[in-house]
Formats: sequence, structure tokens, C-alpha cells
Amino acid sequence: MIDTLNLRHVRLAAENIQPFIHHTPVLRCNGLDHLAGLQLFFKCENFQKVGAFKFRGACNAVCSLPKEKLRQGVATHSSGNHAAALALAAHLQDLPAYVVMPENSPQVKKNAVVGYGAHITYCQATLQAREQGLKNVVEETGAVFIHPFDHLDVIAGQATAALELLDEIGKTDVIMAPVGGGGLMSGTSIAAHGLFPSMRLIGVEPEGADDAMRSIHSGRVIPQTNPHTIADGLLTSLSELTFSILSRHLEDIYTVSEEEIVDAMRHVWERMKIIIEPSAAVAVAGAFKFGQRFRGKKVGVILSGGNVQLDRLPFGPQPKLEAASKE
Amino acid sequence: MIDTLNLRHVRLAAENIQPFIHHTPVLRCNGLDHLAGLQLFFKCENFQKVGAFKFRGACNAVCSLPKEKLRQGVATHSSGNHAAALALAAHLQDLPAYVVMPENSPQVKKNAVVGYGAHITYCQATLQAREQGLKNVVEETGAVFIHPFDHLDVIAGQATAALELLDEIGKTDVIMAPVGGGGLMSGTSIAAHGLFPSMRLIGVEPEGADDAMRSIHSGRVIPQTNPHTIADGLLTSLSELTFSILSRHLEDIYTVSEEEIVDAMRHVWERMKIIIEPSAAVAVAGAFKFGQRFRGKKVGVILSGGNVQLDRLPFGPQPKLEAASKE
Repeated sequence: MIDTLNLRHVRLAAENIQPFIHHTPVLRCNGLDHLAGLQLFFKCENFQKVGAFKFRGACNAVCSLPKEKLRQGVATHSSGNHAAALALAAHLQDLPAYVVMPENSPQVKKNAVVGYGAHITYCQATLQAREQGLKNVVEETGAVFIHPFDHLDVIAGQATAALELLDEIGKTDVIMAPVGGGGLMSGTSIAAHGLFPSMRLIGVEPEGADDAMRSIHSGRVIPQTNPHTIADGLLTSLSELTFSILSRHLEDIYTVSEEEIVDAMRHVWERMKIIIEPSAAVAVAGAFKFGQRFRGKKVGVILSGGNVQLDRLPFGPQPKLEAASKE
Repeated sequence: MIDTLNLRHVRLAAENIQPFIHHTPVLRCNGLDHLAGLQLFFKCENFQKVGAFKFRGACNAVCSLPKEKLRQGVATHSSGNHAAALALAAHLQDLPAYVVMPENSPQVKKNAVVGYGAHITYCQATLQAREQGLKNVVEETGAVFIHPFDHLDVIAGQATAALELLDEIGKTDVIMAPVGGGGLMSGTSIAAHGLFPSMRLIGVEPEGADDAMRSIHSGRVIPQTNPHTIADGLLTSLSELTFSILSRHLEDIYTVSEEEIVDAMRHVWERMKIIIEPSAAVAVAGAFKFGQRFRGKKVGVILSGGNVQLDRLPFGPQPKLEAASKE
């Protein structure tokens, strides 16, 4: 296991996972540049396998473990993209995967995990039930627990999204990414500052799950209690590991309201015709809301994922733009 | 005006519009290839300006008219993508555009037309009211009427989508595209057979608006009465012009049900994370439904557009994939 991460580990992770991942495109949109007053570069991890950057980290964690440790497979508890990511990463290496999921997880997430051939164990929707369920599974099967973000190989994997972005377009002035447990933003920080130490790194959080902002501002991990946001990938709290990385690298963490998240998501869907999930829209909302602080600058935005329940979308009627003549 | 179209006209159109259009990507998706049993190549006109291939034709029509004819601008009646396309095409040449639209058109379409600076005249939602409204506007303003498909320069413009597709990936065995008024399919036919005379060309229609299928099978234009389909871009009937082109080039026209359209649309949204409108999903549904006729073959599919009302989507709950163990 690595002690502290640097650009060398990120390049190694990129090599490890290269045969398995999609090299996702960087997209631009004049309309959104105009709205934000920025030059936006969208790294499209919504087009990544399993529909989220999470596959990079899960894949690197699986690739990095010695073969003899993997015979019993890998395990995790997750209701989200990490579960599907680990299931596919294991499937591609022909290893068993065990996922403990709350019974009330969205059907689309259950289908994804089942589709990649993982074993699901359902539990109640509490952290305690999930951890106990995982403990049981690990004891029964001997599988290796892969944490969704409190794990250096996972973070090194997530870092490869920013690495690809910057390798492709060169230095940007700013990178913005959403912050949940902090795995993506930690990896992004290590890749970006490893390449360009002067880049400005901004995390973005929902107001209803702003533990990372409060943690960074107060200098210690403040866990999130009762998160309330549509951005279902950003409910978790930082770990000591991700807190320590983010404290060293981030300029700040901004917060955005639920309305701003849905508005940003709608703009991306309507203008770019691509599907991003609310957690990804959080970073876009940050770019729109705080764009005037970086007017005209190059801003990289990591679109973290594109998994949504199509029968439960948050969009209301299209607002009216303007009156016209009537006959 | 050109009498009959050939590949030379299409190449000329491509040159005309090249400074204004997006050269859209050709995307692939393993999951959908597997489902259809085909090698699918998706030409993504949902990423075109105004969100649809229609911009190609409108842009070529505007570019092809002599400047002195254009001083008074251009006009059309449309509730759909052609209105926005013509509005933008005129705007980019600094010409006025006049659009006659039914009052009950979706707000998103009205906004698009207003956003590109066109003058809207609202009318009642009958073809008669639209034609009368257009006649009045043309008399008052002297603008040139640009028909959405019964127009050789428009068809030559639409043809450039297939031209780009085949220039990029080489010959495919089949191309499938949706058929409404027949402008896109006519252009596609001329481009494809101009390059590769042996290619198999298949139009796809909704069962609830199958006038082109009935027309081609019976050898004369049979107008559509009371079309009923979610594919709101495919409600119109063929013209004598598009009928005569399609009769010469098409192997067949297939039809798909409303359920098959929504199902195909959902698959593209969920697997590819891109937004296509129901009319585009019609061609995808055709590929899924009749895939066994072309097993393993290379099939180009024109994804005609991506304009949807996000507050009125047709998706029901995600079906359950399979049971899992319970704890």
C-alpha cells in the first residue's frame, strides 16, 4: 500500500486501468460558456463505464491488489455508483464481487450490480446495518473490502480523470469537481497540482450536505448528519484521509442550493444533449454561481456521472422566455 | 434551383454550410450492439446546432439563395425544429426570419425561435391556419418561404449528415433513418447511393404515422390523416418530390410501435447517456426490431435530433432485472 500519493502513483494507476476504462471526451459548449462567463472544459465521466468516474478507482483498486489476495473476491457496501463500479471491475478480472445494498436502493442501481454478475445482500437503510452486513459477508467469503473513497488506490484511480483532462487540453486556471466523500476531489487535486502546482482547485457541495466546506473551514472533520439533497452521490462525510488531502490542496469549497443544482442539470441536458446526474450538476452549478470570480478563465469541470432514474426527474415546466406577436 | 440532386450537389451543400454547422460525432455503444446483434454507428445530429439535422437544410437553403432575394428575409410555418433551424440560419447571415407557429407549440420550441431573434406569428393549430398565416407574412414582408422538406436545397443540406458519416467510417451495409416529410431520408439516400450504389437504405416510421410506408408500397403519395405518435417530428406526409426520391432509393420502410419507440429512446439515454428525441428513437427502434435481418452487419443510424420537453418524458418505472439474496 502507498503512504502518500503523488503524480507517479496517478500515472501508474492510469497504466493499470487503461485497458479497461473509456478514455472519456472533453466537451465544450458555447451557450454555457456564455452563461457562465467562463471557458468551460467538461470532462465527461458520465460516459465512463458504469456511467461514473467511480469505475476508475474501483478498477485500480482491483488491479493493484496481489492476485493471491483476490481469490475470494472483493466486497463493499454502497447504494450507488461504487457498487456497480466494483462489480464490473471484478467481473472483468473474473473475480467474485459481493455488494451489501440497502433494500430501498433505486432499481436502476440494483439492476446494474446484478447485471455485472455481483452477489447482492440486501440490508436495512442504516449505516450500521450496512457495516454489519459487510462484516458478515467478508467473514463468510474472505472477500477484500474496497472502500469507496477511504483508500489510496481508489483515490489514485479517480485522479486519472483530471490527468486525462490536463494531458489533453493543457493547464486550466481552475478545476471544479463535486465533493462527497472526497475521493474524486482528492485524486483531482493530486493530479492537477502534480502537473501544475499553481492551479486553483475548488470543490463544490450541496448546501444540504456541506460537511466538507465546514470541515475545511474549521480545520477538522465534521461528519454530515441528516444530509438533504437531490445529489445522491454526495451524502457521505469526508474521511481523515480525504480531509488531509483536501486541506492541503483546495483553495475553497463552494456550496450551491437545490434549485441551482437542478437548474444547472437542466442547462446541461438542454444545451449539450448529454445526461448528467445531480451530483455532477453540483460542480456545474458552482461554475455558474461563482463564475464572476474567474471571469473569462479556463475552468475544467469534472462531470462525475450520468446515472439517473428516468421516471423520477426533477424538471418542472419550461419557463417562458419572452412574448411575441399574436395573430 | 437544381432539377435533380446528386452527390455533387451534396458536396456543394457541405461546403456552403461548413462554416456554420457542427461536424457531429459518430458514436458507438457495445451494449446496444449486443442488444441489436449489429455493429451500430450513430450519427449524432442531436448534437447539431438547434439540436437537430434540420439546421443543415435550413442553412443550405439560406446560403444558396442569391443575396438580392434575401433582403426581406426568410419565412416558414413550423411547430418544430425547422422553425428554430431557419431562425438561426437567418440570424447567422444577419437576415430577418418570420415563423408562423401554432399557439399550442411546446414552450421549449417557442423559446428557441425567440432566442434566435426570429419574429413569431402565432396561429391556430390547423394546417389551413398555418398556411394562411404564412401567406399573410410573406405578402406583408416579402420574405422567401423555405419549406421544411419539399425543397431541393433543404434536401441537399440534410444529405450532408450521411455524407459526413460515410466519409468518416467508410461504407456501411445499411443506413436507417426516420421518415416524416422525407427530407432527411431523401438526402441520406442521395448521399449514400452517390458514394456506394449497393448500400441498403431503410426508412423507419411510427405505426401511428405510416404514410410513407403505405405510399412506397402502393406506388403513390398517400397523405397521413390523424397521425398519432410520440414522435412529433414525423407527423407530416411525403411530398411528390420526396416520394419520388424515396421510391427510387429505398429498399423498404419499416414501422415500429409507440412502446418500441419509448423503449429504444430509454436504451439510448440509459446506455449512451445522450439525449435523443422520440423521432430519432424511431430509427433506433427499427434497428432493434429488425436487427436479425442484418445480423452482425454495419448499420449507420441517423440520430435526427435531441429536443425534448424535460417535464413531459414518457418513461415509466425501471423494470426489475432479477432477484437477489436477502438478509
